[in-house]
Amino acid sequence: MFGKEIYVGRRKRLLEEMRATGNDGRRGIAVFLGNVEAPQNYRGNDYKFRQESSFLYFWGIDEPGFGAILDLDSGDEVMYGNDVDIDDIIWMGPQPSVASKGGLIGVDRTAPYLGFFEAVRTAKVSGRTVHFLPASRYYNTMMLSSLMGCPAENVRKTGPAYGNPEITASLELTRAVISMRLIKEACEIEEIDKACEIGWLMHTAARQACKPGVREQDIVGKMEGVTISKGWGVSFTTILSQNGETLHNHSHHQIITPGRMLLIDAGAESNTHYASDFTRTLPCSGKFTPKQREIYDIVAECNELAFQLAAPGIPYREVHLAVAAKMLDGLKALSLVNGHIDDMVNEGIAGMFMPHGLGHNMGIDVHDMEDLGEDLVGYDDDQTRASQLGLGSLRMARRLKPGHVITDEPGIYFVPALISKWKEEGTDKGMVNYAAVEKYLDFGGIRLEDDLLITEDGCRRLGPHRLPIAADDVEAAMASEQDRT
Amino acid sequence: MFGKEIYVGRRKRLLEEMRATGNDGRRGIAVFLGNVEAPQNYRGNDYKFRQESSFLYFWGIDEPGFGAILDLDSGDEVMYGNDVDIDDIIWMGPQPSVASKGGLIGVDRTAPYLGFFEAVRTAKVSGRTVHFLPASRYYNTMMLSSLMGCPAENVRKTGPAYGNPEITASLELTRAVISMRLIKEACEIEEIDKACEIGWLMHTAARQACKPGVREQDIVGKMEGVTISKGWGVSFTTILSQNGETLHNHSHHQIITPGRMLLIDAGAESNTHYASDFTRTLPCSGKFTPKQREIYDIVAECNELAFQLAAPGIPYREVHLAVAAKMLDGLKALSLVNGHIDDMVNEGIAGMFMPHGLGHNMGIDVHDMEDLGEDLVGYDDDQTRASQLGLGSLRMARRLKPGHVITDEPGIYFVPALISKWKEEGTDKGMVNYAAVEKYLDFGGIRLEDDLLITEDGCRRLGPHRLPIAADDVEAAMASEQDRT
Repeated sequence: MFGKEIYVGRRKRLLEEMRATGNDGRRGIAVFLGNVEAPQNYRGNDYKFRQESSFLYFWGIDEPGFGAILDLDSGDEVMYGNDVDIDDIIWMGPQPSVASKGGLIGVDRTAPYLGFFEAVRTAKVSGRTVHFLPASRYYNTMMLSSLMGCPAENVRKTGPAYGNPEITASLELTRAVISMRLIKEACEIEEIDKACEIGWLMHTAARQACKPGVREQDIVGKMEGVTISKGWGVSFTTILSQNGETLHNHSHHQIITPGRMLLIDAGAESNTHYASDFTRTLPCSGKFTPKQREIYDIVAECNELAFQLAAPGIPYREVHLAVAAKMLDGLKALSLVNGHIDDMVNEGIAGMFMPHGLGHNMGIDVHDMEDLGEDLVGYDDDQTRASQLGLGSLRMARRLKPGHVITDEPGIYFVPALISKWKEEGTDKGMVNYAAVEKYLDFGGIRLEDDLLITEDGCRRLGPHRLPIAADDVEAAMASEQDRT
Repeated sequence: MFGKEIYVGRRKRLLEEMRATGNDGRRGIAVFLGNVEAPQNYRGNDYKFRQESSFLYFWGIDEPGFGAILDLDSGDEVMYGNDVDIDDIIWMGPQPSVASKGGLIGVDRTAPYLGFFEAVRTAKVSGRTVHFLPASRYYNTMMLSSLMGCPAENVRKTGPAYGNPEITASLELTRAVISMRLIKEACEIEEIDKACEIGWLMHTAARQACKPGVREQDIVGKMEGVTISKGWGVSFTTILSQNGETLHNHSHHQIITPGRMLLIDAGAESNTHYASDFTRTLPCSGKFTPKQREIYDIVAECNELAFQLAAPGIPYREVHLAVAAKMLDGLKALSLVNGHIDDMVNEGIAGMFMPHGLGHNMGIDVHDMEDLGEDLVGYDDDQTRASQLGLGSLRMARRLKPGHVITDEPGIYFVPALISKWKEEGTDKGMVNYAAVEKYLDFGGIRLEDDLLITEDGCRRLGPHRLPIAADDVEAAMASEQDRT
């Protein structure tokens, strides 16, 4: 939790942003429903509590069962939550009062949790505009749908809150929140640096544990143990697999086998809930084969190119396309594709090898604010999302500004089902050399990811240390670590 | 996952149990809605998937987005789930078809996921009885409430399914499922033994890491890393605190301090989702103080007594009361209480020191089947729940039978808020010696827990090894481990 001036300042700014919308005296209220516990197998055996991210950003309280309301006309703020009774003390220990928690974030008025629902209902009945953010969790969806008298799906989509006969999440509030959360404050960057430090420790533990004969699940446990020792936990379910061509592979039953590669995409969430997200691809034997190294080097060059290009003023969409060109250039040198680079970029040929975007925003969420709407978060008003494979999955296309935190994660994968689909359907317009590509059907995939902060004059990699990335450096690290143990 | 004969056999038995209810030809259908992904901070960034436990028990498939229906009249079985498309293959890898998954559990008929909802709606519209189990997750609650046309709270409570104008979860189905899941099969006991082995490794790692100057969170990470390396994860959120008097303490920011004790209540869930649950209380310095050891020895004797008494035929409620008597006897010898033991037991004096029950059922859930209703699971038809503090929290009161798996977890705690409440309200009827008890206000708490399988002639402790429990053994283990590192 930050000092109270941070939360006071954020709410003040939000009030200003929202006062630029609607009509004076008729702006209504902005409501924030925090998360409740999420049952794992039964109520009472809950997943580790994770607060709703925008609630955390504006109201700071990292506990279940809170709500808060900002009156956009009067500027009044009320936080809602319940004080504990003797049963709670026996099971959960003595707790500060809700009023004193309000004090920590500069809110003077607090009230019991049920008051939140009464206040929203009262505002709605009296015809005031009720601004709420799109909900992710089912509980929040149910409660908001019932309070607002709209279908559950409307709670998850945004539309104008003023003068709109259809009740949905508020586009005005969503845009205001996105505009603030997109540009990270100094205190946030400090926390992201900490999360990156934990991510570095995770990946270092993984590299040290990556040896022939070890089960993938064993390595995952070592990595996740680090995140729980040092932070809240993982910022997303760890991807760790020798089948790196499967982008989000969560199965870890295989044994580390010489000759294969291990793709690890994992990050930590700090105790204050800021994320890191790194990917490295390791040679299981400690040394890449020449064939692996050729592809690896292309991906590493792409990662470096994005780092060189990322700077204020350039849309990240253009960086994605520059990386696609670089990648196709490398693949062409290996005779895997053929044609003019520009033509191949235009036809989206890179998408067969990299069917995902170059990166995404990162902050309190690893895909920052994805719950608020991917396009609202990742696209400027004058950009539209492409339909091509790869570019169409780009989550962050915006013109970069200082304070943006984004990932730089190119990859090359050989996905047998996708290759045969393209071949069958002629999607490549003759630009893919299938005879050559088919020699890579058992290759797997490589992805290399760092986290970048856009600065005044370029960008910097987040975290105090960088994980080894050059093929030689990775092999040297693994050689020295294998000696050590 | 077990062999298909296990699942076929369980459904056959369930059909028989259910055929003993209702009228021939009018029994309707039993529906099982599996879990979907649970969003952590946004949809797509989900908590680690956990299947609904009864779905897992009867239908075995450990993936989101499945449902199944057992026709109680025709005996027909259908499992519902979606096959993957090319996008799924890119992100999640090639997957076996739903039909082939049906084959793994002996179900011939499979259909797309939406078919589940259509089939339930059709059965309901045509006047057939639809039996469903109480739901825990909000998604399942929403879906069943909408399908069945009943309020959400009715989806979470049980009532007769036949001839009941009020729609609720089916008492008949719930009872049938409980009767089966309460008595563990050999294949289940094998998995619980595995979960106990992981639990032993967790606690061993914790004991080795428990040294002055270490942060509690560091130890939690080491323990949880073990569970993820070897199993699915923790079977419940780890309780690890030097404030052991707080029964479910999930805050781990304190530094291990000589003179205090560290209470660790933690267990593992195996890859097949069976639980273990152990508690040990360690001296932070490696040696108990004489005052700590006096209380510790009473708790250890209580743990042993429950193990000696637990056998077929005795209600676990009686074991709880015998433990309460033993505990009061020990506390009396320390002059903390005074009075006849029987009087003190009857007045519930033990509840001030142990405000929880002696144990609970354990299986696929660490509190097994808590979602199906604590009293239906833990109480025989001729038992009612007490209102006394402690005994009133007893989750397992039933007459023991071979195949029951239960925990044995006595504890003594000094909860300042509770002690002053009792003193103020005179709850102890003069039997507590507050002048003595108040010397323990900074003592904390001790709990010692093992997992027991009721056998034909008594019980055995689950897991291949037992964690050290005698105070001397704990100190000896810590001494040798502190030398080692």
